[in-house]
This record gives sequence, structure tokens and C-alpha cells, in this order.
Amino acid sequence: MKLLRVGPAGHEVPAVLTEDGRLLDLSPVTVEIDGRFLAEDGAARARAALEQGRLPELTAPGLRVGAPVARPGKVVCIGLNYRDHARETNAAVPTRPVVFMKDPGTVVGPYDRVQIPRGSVKTDWEVELAVVIGRRARYLDSPEEALGCVAGYAISNDVSEREFQLEYSGQWDLGKSCETFNPLGPWLVTPDEITDPQRLRLTTEVNGVRRQHGTTADMIFDVAYLLWYLSQYLVLEPGDVVNTGTPAGVALGLPGQPYLRPGDTVELGIDGLGSQRQTFAAARKEDRP
Amino acid sequence: MKLLRVGPAGHEVPAVLTEDGRLLDLSPVTVEIDGRFLAEDGAARARAALEQGRLPELTAPGLRVGAPVARPGKVVCIGLNYRDHARETNAAVPTRPVVFMKDPGTVVGPYDRVQIPRGSVKTDWEVELAVVIGRRARYLDSPEEALGCVAGYAISNDVSEREFQLEYSGQWDLGKSCETFNPLGPWLVTPDEITDPQRLRLTTEVNGVRRQHGTTADMIFDVAYLLWYLSQYLVLEPGDVVNTGTPAGVALGLPGQPYLRPGDTVELGIDGLGSQRQTFAAARKEDRP
Repeated sequence: MKLLRVGPAGHEVPAVLTEDGRLLDLSPVTVEIDGRFLAEDGAARARAALEQGRLPELTAPGLRVGAPVARPGKVVCIGLNYRDHARETNAAVPTRPVVFMKDPGTVVGPYDRVQIPRGSVKTDWEVELAVVIGRRARYLDSPEEALGCVAGYAISNDVSEREFQLEYSGQWDLGKSCETFNPLGPWLVTPDEITDPQRLRLTTEVNGVRRQHGTTADMIFDVAYLLWYLSQYLVLEPGDVVNTGTPAGVALGLPGQPYLRPGDTVELGIDGLGSQRQTFAAARKEDRP
Repeated sequence: MKLLRVGPAGHEVPAVLTEDGRLLDLSPVTVEIDGRFLAEDGAARARAALEQGRLPELTAPGLRVGAPVARPGKVVCIGLNYRDHARETNAAVPTRPVVFMKDPGTVVGPYDRVQIPRGSVKTDWEVELAVVIGRRARYLDSPEEALGCVAGYAISNDVSEREFQLEYSGQWDLGKSCETFNPLGPWLVTPDEITDPQRLRLTTEVNGVRRQHGTTADMIFDVAYLLWYLSQYLVLEPGDVVNTGTPAGVALGLPGQPYLRPGDTVELGIDGLGSQRQTFAAARKEDRP
């Protein structure tokens, strides 16, 4: 099942995309797709309503698509989790997951404009498999147990400003937390549709040029291991988002480092999760997104 | 004015502590002390209700004190912001603020039990001046403008697991984000009571032994500068918390590194902001705080 949120930013309504491409209003089941909905077996209730034909069609063409989860409590990110990406950034292959965070306020819709921060000359893309948590994960006994905590998967663009991230201090969060730096969606795809999260192709095209082309099979630490690992140190709550790392092909690792400039478009895709597309624009003082 | 939240975890009610030590119920003004309340001039409304005698007394002795702000959207931390602490940890004095984040879910009440994570042998204390944001801060023009975005100040214990923070990867967030790792409060003290945030003494006692004794005058980057700096890279929203760094005297920097063990008590104080006191206990699999 594909869950999504449509409408103006801050006023999205919950929806389901059917297998034959119809957009249905999920409002009879919930006012919001958020941690509480996911924790309270919302997906099962949505599926039941869908099968019983209780969801009316949403007929508002041109509706904006928001992030498929409202207000994540946190966004946890894994760095250098693909061997080829570790290599292209001249980093050692990590022996433990590299864990950092980004401001959960950076999460925006999959087609929203992304702002290049003032003073930025190194804004970069990163296609990632995002895992959305559906059940509290705390001191899980095993990686096997971890997949039971997954509400679904989505595409994440873990947008990164490399100067702020890598040159201002040893801590990466500043360059990961700029306004609009986490397009998410278009859909939250429930696990039944993703038979193996470690066999998904990920791609990025920038201005129509293929830049990233990886597979989640190349993750150093797989999804189950990552959630188990995180649960030994922090508590993952329903609605939290985990960005699981990016394969090679980011601007930082390419010849000439072709960082993003105003007007550039970035298109990201992952098998089964759809695609997103953003146009990048200079942040202005007066912007109030 | 001193704002606080009292009652069982998850069911706190908003309150005001008067200058003569009475606890008044703020429920006639708001259901919650959170970002929305602070952004909508809540402190001014609370003060008006207080002066008009519209707040009834809260007479429930032994009430738990919660964190003075509900559900911060994020907790931004500044590392190595006191020269003596940078020295004790053998770190260079930074030329820019070192910015990292902790899971906002770690925020607990000032007297709540703090959990030592499973497997931890390096759990440490850090008394810090916390700044709570009251007005959106985005591309502020100057540090002078920044103090207008402050809703108030509080004590923060930026509890840290040094092995998870410093030895598992180059990124600190994992060792900062363990469950219950951010006691906050007891009060949110409005800026009119803190005439100069750069002249506050901070102290920590562990099992009655004075360990930290610093002053905010020794910050490398002061509060106004920090908020201005952060606003150039990310957006601070009402209700967000900024931990501004800790002075020397943490276990990591002391002879013999006397890290916390179950049963230890930590007492923190900052001029004008009251004091907090936690007992540390081993996290157990079955804990559900």
C-alpha cells in the first residue's frame, strides 16, 4: 500500500494511491499520517477501509504532494554506508555505522523547491532509502526483530552542504540541517510491497545526467542491522525516519565536483518507491516556506 | 517569570512559580508550554494573568517537575564552547562553533532518573546553559538581533556516553542521544530575570563532590553569537532548545575518569535558574519510561 499526504504545506490531507493509480482520501480513517497513526496500526486500518470501499476519491488535479509522514520526531542518518561512496569521499570503510542527525524540520515534499543556503557553493545530492518507524525500537534482541518495527519505506534526498558539513567542524549536522534539505516521498510504501529492502536500485539524475546508480545490496550495514544497532543506543519512536546512506556518485566525489546551482533539477528514484524531482533555488532572506 | 510543567510524565500541567515561592496553575492561559505557546506571546499572557490574579494555586505536594518545555522540535548542541573544557578533553579551541544534535526525545524532567545505557562504562555529566527559542530565527542580521528570539533560559544536563560519542565513529550524536540523556529545568526563566546571560555561574556536584565550577563569561562563542551563527545555516523554531556547551570538570577530563555508576547522584546549578538533581540507574530491557 502506498500512503501519502497531499495539499498545501502544513495543510496536507492523508491519502492512499491505489494499484490502478487512483488517489483516495484517507480522512475517514485518520486526520494525519504520523507516528501515532503508524503506532496504532494505522496501515492495517487504512487497508481495511480501502478493501471495504470506504475511501472516497480525491479529485483535485495538480495537488501538491507533501512528505508522506508528518513531523518526524527525529531524522537519524547513516554515513558512508555504501563501499563505493566511502571510497569516492576518501573515507575509510566504517567498522560501525556512522550515526548523525539532521533537523527534522528539514523534511519537505518530494517535488518542493530546495533552497541553496546563502553563501553555499557546495550543495550536494544524496539518494537514500528512508525507513519510517512504526513501532518503538529499544534494545531489540536481534536484527531479525528489527524489520517488525518498520512502517514502510520512502525515497529521501539527504541534501548536504559539504563546506558546512566537512570544513566548519568535525561534526556533520550543520551541513545536513539547512532549510528544505530533506525531500521525502512521494509515498510511504508498506513493507508487504518491498519483498527485499536489500535489492533495490537507487538512481539520481541531475539536469538529466545520470549521477548515482547503486543498489541497496551494496550497503555495508543492512536495514535490519542498522535498526537493531541504533536501538542499542537510542530509542526509535513511531514516525521517526532513518536515512540509510547513499551510494557513489555525489558531486563531492565526481571529477570537477559539480555542486548544485540555482535552476538545477535533481530527480531521484528507488525501485518500488516512485521518484522525486526538485528544482534548486537560492535561499533568500525573505523566504518563509 | 519562572514557567514550569508539573505532573506525571506525559501529563504535565503548565504552571508559574511566583517570587514568593507559590506554585500557580497556568491552565487558564494555555494547555501546554510549547513552541506554539512561546511563539504566540505566551509569556506575556502568562504575566498578565499572573498580575491580574487569575491563576489559582496548585496545591499538590510532591508533584513531579517535568521539563519546562514540551516536545522540543530539536535540540541543537554546541561542543567545546569553554576554553577550559576544550583543554581538558585535549581538543583544539574551535574557530567556529562545533554544532551537533541530540534526539529531542531525550529531554526529561530535572529530577527524573537518568538511565545508564546497557554496556556503558563512560556515562558523563555536562552542566549547560540551555536557551529556549521563542521566535523563529532564520538568517538573522546580527548577534544583537538574536537575543530577541530567546524565550528563556534553563539548566540542561547534556549527559554524554564518551565511548559511544568518541570511539564508535567521528560523529558524536549517538553518545548524546541515549534515552533520558537531557534533563531540562526545573524552570524556563524569562530573559527579564537574566540581566546578562554571560555572567552566570554553573556548578556540578557528583555524590556531593564539586566537579564543575565555571562561568558563562568563559564561553568562546556567546549566546547571541551562537544563535546568529546557527541562523545562517539552519532555522531555529519556537520551542527548540540550544545547549550552549559545558565548562571544565567532566569525568572525561578528570584524573581517573570517574564516570557515573548506578546509584550516583548529580546535582547541577546555574545562577538564577535553580538546580536539578538526578540519580543514575542502569537501563533495563523492560524499562518503559
